[in-house]
Amino acid sequence: MTTATSTASKGLEGVVAAESKMSFIDGNLGILEYVGIPIAALAENSTFEETVFLLWNGRLPKRAELDEFVAQIRAQYPLPKELIDIITSFPKTAEPMHVLRTGVSALSLWDRTPDAITPDDVHAKGISMMAKMPGILTTFDRYRQGKPIVPPDRSLSFAANLMYMLNGEKPTRTMEKALDVCLILHTDHGLNASTFTARVIASTLSDVYSAISGAIGALRGPLHGGANEGVMHMLHEIGSLANVEPFIRDRLEKHEKVMGFGHRVYKTRDPRAMFLKSFSKKLAEQTGNSKLYEMSRKIEDLMDAAVGSRGIYPNVDFYSATTYHCIGLKLDLFTPMFAISRIGGWLGHVIEQQDGNRLIRPKADYIGPHDQPYIPIDER
Amino acid sequence: MTTATSTASKGLEGVVAAESKMSFIDGNLGILEYVGIPIAALAENSTFEETVFLLWNGRLPKRAELDEFVAQIRAQYPLPKELIDIITSFPKTAEPMHVLRTGVSALSLWDRTPDAITPDDVHAKGISMMAKMPGILTTFDRYRQGKPIVPPDRSLSFAANLMYMLNGEKPTRTMEKALDVCLILHTDHGLNASTFTARVIASTLSDVYSAISGAIGALRGPLHGGANEGVMHMLHEIGSLANVEPFIRDRLEKHEKVMGFGHRVYKTRDPRAMFLKSFSKKLAEQTGNSKLYEMSRKIEDLMDAAVGSRGIYPNVDFYSATTYHCIGLKLDLFTPMFAISRIGGWLGHVIEQQDGNRLIRPKADYIGPHDQPYIPIDER
Repeated sequence: MTTATSTASKGLEGVVAAESKMSFIDGNLGILEYVGIPIAALAENSTFEETVFLLWNGRLPKRAELDEFVAQIRAQYPLPKELIDIITSFPKTAEPMHVLRTGVSALSLWDRTPDAITPDDVHAKGISMMAKMPGILTTFDRYRQGKPIVPPDRSLSFAANLMYMLNGEKPTRTMEKALDVCLILHTDHGLNASTFTARVIASTLSDVYSAISGAIGALRGPLHGGANEGVMHMLHEIGSLANVEPFIRDRLEKHEKVMGFGHRVYKTRDPRAMFLKSFSKKLAEQTGNSKLYEMSRKIEDLMDAAVGSRGIYPNVDFYSATTYHCIGLKLDLFTPMFAISRIGGWLGHVIEQQDGNRLIRPKADYIGPHDQPYIPIDER
Repeated sequence: MTTATSTASKGLEGVVAAESKMSFIDGNLGILEYVGIPIAALAENSTFEETVFLLWNGRLPKRAELDEFVAQIRAQYPLPKELIDIITSFPKTAEPMHVLRTGVSALSLWDRTPDAITPDDVHAKGISMMAKMPGILTTFDRYRQGKPIVPPDRSLSFAANLMYMLNGEKPTRTMEKALDVCLILHTDHGLNASTFTARVIASTLSDVYSAISGAIGALRGPLHGGANEGVMHMLHEIGSLANVEPFIRDRLEKHEKVMGFGHRVYKTRDPRAMFLKSFSKKLAEQTGNSKLYEMSRKIEDLMDAAVGSRGIYPNVDFYSATTYHCIGLKLDLFTPMFAISRIGGWLGHVIEQQDGNRLIRPKADYIGPHDQPYIPIDER
C-alpha cells in the first residue's frame, strides 16, 4: 500500500475508488454497456424508464414490474405547490443549472423523512426526485419567459411529459424518441466527477437530496457537463456550411480546441456519438435542421482528414448538441437536460455505495510551514 | 503507477488526492496547525474572521487588512429580501441542514456572475456566502418558532451577530468567545469528506455555490458532521451524574460505541478537545451548566480507566456538544453550526484546487456481466 499512499496520480487518474455493476466502458474498443447490454441496443429498443430500472435493479424488468415503475414515476410528476411558488419568485435572470440544483435540494424540505437511506427509501426518493426534476426546470423556464406554467400530464412518458411541460404542447413521436434516446445515452458513464461526488457524499451516510444536489453542482462545471453548450456555440459561430472549412482549418492551425472532439476515456469512436450521429440525421431532416447536421458532418470529415491516425473523434456532446437543438431546447437547458438524464446513474451509484459503505476520505499532502508563532497583530 | 491503479484502499484511505497549505495534522502526536500555527494559539488569541483570512491567504493579516476583511464580511450580512421570503415559506418541519444547503445553493440566483471563479471572484463570493450563512440558519430557526426575524447588526463580530440573529439579544462576552472558539477549532481539518467533496466539485471548474452546497450535503452525514448531536443525545440519555458510571460500564460491557470517543485521524488526544475541555469548564460554570460538564469529565475518566493503553480519547465532538449546549443552541443546530464554521476550510480548499487544477476523476472497477442481449419484454 506504500505506493498508493505516496504516488497517487493528480486527479486520481487510474485510481480505483469504487466497484460498480452498472456501466462498463472500454475506451480502446469503443464499448459502452449498461449491466452488460450494449448501449446501442438500449437506445434502439428500450425507454429511459426501463433503462433506469435496469441500472437500479441490475436487470431488465418484467412487464408488470415496468408498468408499476412507470406508474410510480408518473404519480410523482407534480411538484409541491409551495415549490412552484418559490421557483416563480426566483430572479428571472437565474441560470437553469443553479435553479435545478436549488430545486432538487429544496425537495428535501417537504419530505418528512429526508434522511432515510434504507434501499427502499433510496428507491422511493429517487423515483420522486427523478419525476420532479423536469417540473423544476420547466416551471422556471416558462416563468422566466412570462408563460403560464404547464402542469404535468400523467398519461405521458417521462420524455414526452418533459417536452409537454416545456413547450405546452405534446411532442411528436420523433421528438419524444429523440429526447428519450438522449436520456438513455447520458444516464450513466462510470465514475465521472459528478457520479463520484454523489458517492463521496453518500459515503458519509448522508441523504439522497444531498448526494444528488451535490452531483448537479459538479456536472455544472465546464470540464464536465458544461461541454455540450460549447458545441452549439461553435456551430452558431460557424454559421454556414461554406464557413466550416476555413473555421476548422483556422482552429487546427492555431492548435485551438474544436468543441465536441476527443474524450478522456474513449481513444476510438464514442459509441454514444456513433448512435446519435445516424439518429440525428433523420431527426434533422424531419425538423428542418438539415443545415446543422450537414455542418456537423463536414466538421467531422475535416477533423478525420486532418488528425487521421491521431484519432480525435467526435464525442457524445458533438451530436447531442445538434439533437437538443432539433428538439427545440434553448442553449442553457442543454446541461440541465444532461443532469436530468444522469439521475439514473447517480441514484444507482448511491445505492451501490450504501451497500457495504465505507467513508471515502483520501488525504492531502501538507506542503505549508510548521511551528509558526501567533504574532500579535501590531507586530506583523 | 500500477499499484495505485489496482490496489487503492477502500474509502481511498491513505491515498493522496491533493496538496494543501492550510491544516497540518499529526494524529500520533496530537498536533493540529493552521498554516503552521498551533490550533490552541489561534483559539486563545485569534478570531474566526482572522483565522479565515489566514486560511484563505496563507498568512495572518496586518491590522488594516483585517479591518478591511471584517468590514467586507459585515457589509454582506444581510440576505436578499426575496430569500427571506422564500425561507419563511418553507415547511416549519424542515431540518436546518437541508435549509442551510438549499439556502446556500439559492444565493447563486441573485448573483449576476455566479459562475465566475477567478481568485478575486472566489474570495468575494466566499465572503458573501460566509456572511450570509448565519442569516439563512437564524431566519429559518426564528420563523419555525413563530418569532420575528432579527436583521443582522453590522456592529457585531461574526460570532456575536450570529447569536444576536438567533436569540434576538446580544450575547455576553463569554458566550461570544465560546462560539468564536468553536468556529476557529472547526474551520479546517485536512481532506475530510466534505472538504474533499468541495474540491471534487471545484475540479470540474464549477462555481463556489455548487462546491459549498455539495460540501454541506456531505457534512450532514452521520459519519461526518452529524456526530456531535449524538454526544448530546447520550448526555441527555444519561441524565444525571449518578447514572454516568452504570451507563458507561453497560456500554463497554456490551461493546457498544460511546459517542464522542475515538477519531479516524487522532491516535492520541485531539488538540481541539484538549482546548475545549478547559474552556468548557469555565463556560459551564458561568452558564449554570456545571452538571453537564461534570458528567462529561466523569465519562472521560471512566473511559480512560477502562480502555487505558488502547487509547480511545474524547474527540472534538465530545466537548463541543457541551459548549454548543451552554450557549443555548438547539440540538438540530449543532451540525449547521459546524457547517458554518467550515466555510473557512471549504473555500480555502476551493482556492487551492483551482490553482493548477486537474479534474478529480478516479475510476470504478466494473464487476457486472458482459455481452448481454436486450431481451424483449415478454420473453423475460
